[in-house]
Amino acid sequence: MPQRSFIRPDFEDLEPYDPKYVACDVMISANENTYGLPEGVKDQMVAAVAEQAFNRYPDPMANGLRDAVAQWHGVGRDNVIIGNGGDELLFNLLFSCGGNGGVLVSCPPEFSIYALYARMAGMRHVPVMRDLATFEVDQAGVEAVAKDARIIIITSPNNPTGNLVDPAWVERLSGMTDALILVDEAYIDFARDEDSCRRLVRDDGNVAVLGTFSKAFALAGVRCGYILAPKSAVDAMSAVRQPYSVDVCAQAIATVAVRNRESFSPILTQIASERERMLAELPAVSSDIQVWPSAANFYTARIPGAHDVWNRLRDEYSVLVRDFSSTPGLEDCLRITVGTPEENDRLVAALAELVKG
Amino acid sequence: MPQRSFIRPDFEDLEPYDPKYVACDVMISANENTYGLPEGVKDQMVAAVAEQAFNRYPDPMANGLRDAVAQWHGVGRDNVIIGNGGDELLFNLLFSCGGNGGVLVSCPPEFSIYALYARMAGMRHVPVMRDLATFEVDQAGVEAVAKDARIIIITSPNNPTGNLVDPAWVERLSGMTDALILVDEAYIDFARDEDSCRRLVRDDGNVAVLGTFSKAFALAGVRCGYILAPKSAVDAMSAVRQPYSVDVCAQAIATVAVRNRESFSPILTQIASERERMLAELPAVSSDIQVWPSAANFYTARIPGAHDVWNRLRDEYSVLVRDFSSTPGLEDCLRITVGTPEENDRLVAALAELVKG
Repeated sequence: MPQRSFIRPDFEDLEPYDPKYVACDVMISANENTYGLPEGVKDQMVAAVAEQAFNRYPDPMANGLRDAVAQWHGVGRDNVIIGNGGDELLFNLLFSCGGNGGVLVSCPPEFSIYALYARMAGMRHVPVMRDLATFEVDQAGVEAVAKDARIIIITSPNNPTGNLVDPAWVERLSGMTDALILVDEAYIDFARDEDSCRRLVRDDGNVAVLGTFSKAFALAGVRCGYILAPKSAVDAMSAVRQPYSVDVCAQAIATVAVRNRESFSPILTQIASERERMLAELPAVSSDIQVWPSAANFYTARIPGAHDVWNRLRDEYSVLVRDFSSTPGLEDCLRITVGTPEENDRLVAALAELVKG
Repeated sequence: MPQRSFIRPDFEDLEPYDPKYVACDVMISANENTYGLPEGVKDQMVAAVAEQAFNRYPDPMANGLRDAVAQWHGVGRDNVIIGNGGDELLFNLLFSCGGNGGVLVSCPPEFSIYALYARMAGMRHVPVMRDLATFEVDQAGVEAVAKDARIIIITSPNNPTGNLVDPAWVERLSGMTDALILVDEAYIDFARDEDSCRRLVRDDGNVAVLGTFSKAFALAGVRCGYILAPKSAVDAMSAVRQPYSVDVCAQAIATVAVRNRESFSPILTQIASERERMLAELPAVSSDIQVWPSAANFYTARIPGAHDVWNRLRDEYSVLVRDFSSTPGLEDCLRITVGTPEENDRLVAALAELVKG
């Protein structure tokens, strides 16, 4: 008997997000913090896990962590929602505030999961392409379609291109639309405090900001993120969320991260310094390599024959980066995470052979 | 300026799942395993957490745990999907295989989240009420609507009434419909192995079974569950899931639980024994108290003035049980988790005062 297909017909052609993971010696493909946690912090986290009652349901809204995040960012508890990584929050935002044919405006090239979740949530996606020379947001283009949007997502720093958005422009945009504007700041902790749009989050406003512990705070495996938003948007996401989506371990570990947040500064400084080194060294390897400035822990590099370079980096050098060469606007581009000095050196050495050779 | 509402209009009246949590001395409301983990097992779990690289993304499909579950239940890896608790899996099943006006058949009184998720997923819910004297499934009623269903959910043991379903009937039903039949066996580990419908899961079939580590395995706080299903249903859920929904801690902890599963037996035996004691003692407290047999770690009790009894148990005795008195078919019913002998004694003593008094 042949297998039956159980997926709903309109989802048959969904293409799930594929991180293209292959085990390599040097894993600089997923924008993880490859430096790991500051000395002593992991021990505190494991100790906090050991204190949890595993047999009892978690606090549904993670109120302890929620209060810590609220205090950190100077907002009220009602303006914070904690999620099982930024992923859960992105889906729940599009699903609860979008849906139903509502328009999502966003600015590719960007995190591809926005388009996937918009599709799943039943939204109509209106992409406003970034300037393909600088990858800056097309502000006039966004303003032109903002009135009809239900949700506008601006990524800052943008993944995969590293650009920041100007908070002053986001503020102006927020006055031009009733849409909820989500600034995805998953990588903002690598930038300066004044680059964040957090100060625009107000209960009577329409700006929300996504943050995560996965990147700067070196907790990609633990799955914890948050959105700061007007209370009514928090309420909307709360209405559709699975009640116990953030487990006791993630709540405990992320709370330790917030408490120790200052101790991550030396690592973040070193990552920024390594990023600047790589942005200088890669074009020195070959004038054929083009890089763009970045405010995050990754950068985009355009390299002739990038897809082939990506394959050979992986297979011959055991260095995994991310291939964006088939993404519109990112032809011949790789996204490279800033690794440790040793990891970065291995990449430079490999590229020196591959690109010159 | 007044706050704007951001929720999509058709979700404005959604009523989120409310566990009605209030901190009490005796927490026997959420069907947790109040005995906790077997001696030494939590230490193994914490040690396994300490070994994880927190800064790296989890294995998206949790293949290590997936293989352990597959081996345990005698199915292939492709027939297992791991989730962030049963909740995530239930939503993803209804969302990926239902949606789009498809019909969900289920058998209330039951876990209320099915109806909520069906509504969110855009399904039409066709409830087939259980016999309200025995809470047995209305088999003829289900068979009569099975042809038009996309998904049929049968809960065994049923939450909140404790009834098992006959696997032989599920097998017959599976031949009468193209619907995917999900047997929600969140509480099956409290019953006998032969009560499970797991053996009906086949790649060319249409039966799926949900299991969880939250209940018998005392890991409600850790959020880990699984569905055994035909590969095409696993693929459908995989297509809509958030790629990293199960964190490294949950994967590590649940894997330790599978490896040590035999060590839970004495606790499960004691819970069954305490359940039988309570089913005998409660009617002895007052002939006004009616109980039903249960194969799970909870039971339903009908008590005159149950809502008031529930309030007074909580406020005067610091004993929290679950009030189902406003659920159709469960008038004057409380659902009570089987606690430790001491917890159960406190409930009996409190009811002796409240119901006789």
